[in-house]
Amino acid sequence: MADPDFDPSALKVIAFDVFGTVVDWHGGIAAEVAQRLPGVDAQAFALAWRAGYQPAMQHVMARMAAGEGGFTLLDELHLGILDQVLQDFGVRGLNDAARRELNRAWHRLPAWPDAVQGLMRLKRRYTVCSLSNGNLGLLTAMAKHAGLPWDCVLSAEVFKAYKPDPRTYLGVAAVFDVAPSQVMLAAAHHDDLAAARVCGLATAYIERPHEFGTHKPKDVSPQPGNDLHARDIHALADLLGC
Amino acid sequence: MADPDFDPSALKVIAFDVFGTVVDWHGGIAAEVAQRLPGVDAQAFALAWRAGYQPAMQHVMARMAAGEGGFTLLDELHLGILDQVLQDFGVRGLNDAARRELNRAWHRLPAWPDAVQGLMRLKRRYTVCSLSNGNLGLLTAMAKHAGLPWDCVLSAEVFKAYKPDPRTYLGVAAVFDVAPSQVMLAAAHHDDLAAARVCGLATAYIERPHEFGTHKPKDVSPQPGNDLHARDIHALADLLGC
Repeated sequence: MADPDFDPSALKVIAFDVFGTVVDWHGGIAAEVAQRLPGVDAQAFALAWRAGYQPAMQHVMARMAAGEGGFTLLDELHLGILDQVLQDFGVRGLNDAARRELNRAWHRLPAWPDAVQGLMRLKRRYTVCSLSNGNLGLLTAMAKHAGLPWDCVLSAEVFKAYKPDPRTYLGVAAVFDVAPSQVMLAAAHHDDLAAARVCGLATAYIERPHEFGTHKPKDVSPQPGNDLHARDIHALADLLGC
Repeated sequence: MADPDFDPSALKVIAFDVFGTVVDWHGGIAAEVAQRLPGVDAQAFALAWRAGYQPAMQHVMARMAAGEGGFTLLDELHLGILDQVLQDFGVRGLNDAARRELNRAWHRLPAWPDAVQGLMRLKRRYTVCSLSNGNLGLLTAMAKHAGLPWDCVLSAEVFKAYKPDPRTYLGVAAVFDVAPSQVMLAAAHHDDLAAARVCGLATAYIERPHEFGTHKPKDVSPQPGNDLHARDIHALADLLGC
């Protein structure tokens, strides 16, 4: 579904949100938790771990804004949240090495079934990169593991600012020396897309109804303002004529 | 050729210098100059353009050290040097669009014949990234054009410091959360390798006898201190058992 006013002819770069949009964090985390922490409700654990992300990120951003703290890698944030979730779920006795190994489950998330081939189609015509609050090491390990064919791994870590800070969206345009309108953000989250739109980027919403698991379907109905609305990355490639 | 004390078993990441090591800047620039500026000595023009790089970079680094200037993208430095070289070679009348198009010749440099397959072999076992003073946009366009299969494009631009600043070499280790000794720099330049070695990185010298053209063969004899010395990137993969 395309906004009738959208003109893709000048588009050069497609930047993808990653967690939820390109990879299935819920399925990946739940599978590793089920394997490593027998007896724990793995689906609930995955949801709790991810639910800790927004408050942790907001805490870091508030500290940075107040000049009290620096940029923190998502790997570190995930580890801190994990400690709390382990406690909340009554898991004891996990040593440091086991905690770090479990934390690297975020490096091993599976791609959604359409993602690898969809990105391959898009990169024939466009520069295709990540734009995630995940750190470069995490995103690189994930890409190797899942076979994600990024032309360039971009991250909040490059811009020393997290989405939805404008420096991230405008940073993509600056890296590739194009106008903001020549960059499209593709994401499964309307708030991310709205922040990119304010910066002048084109936007594509990607439906991921099972981002939170098959038992918790997400409302993926279209919202006004996005240039494109696609069922998955193959459908995005179709809409762009790739 | 391997230093007998070198133990590759802990190695995780191989970071490559790019200009001269992975791509043939002299051949690529000379070919574009010959095509776009008929009548100009294309080989001499290529050498002059590259010769302007070190002084321009040192000027930027001195200004940054003095707090007088910020990080400058290599694309901008190349454009400034180009203006001087055009003047020195008596080329007049090139408009701004033509200058910028010629400047993008650095985005279209050809890979050395062994580079793509050699990197493919290495990335089966290691994380393989660039570590270049080239900017991210330049390195990404080059990788797309030449088919360089980087796991991650790393650049001075990520660290806001240029090689041989220790922040670049140590930055690679930090990005991938490994010890400096678990990173190997592969380069065709002994000064780059020496600076990496001081930071604790492993080093591999790559012979590129025709970096400055077939008429100006470069001394590629081994120097002490490097862990590995390889004729090309295939030979490096051989030495590492990939």
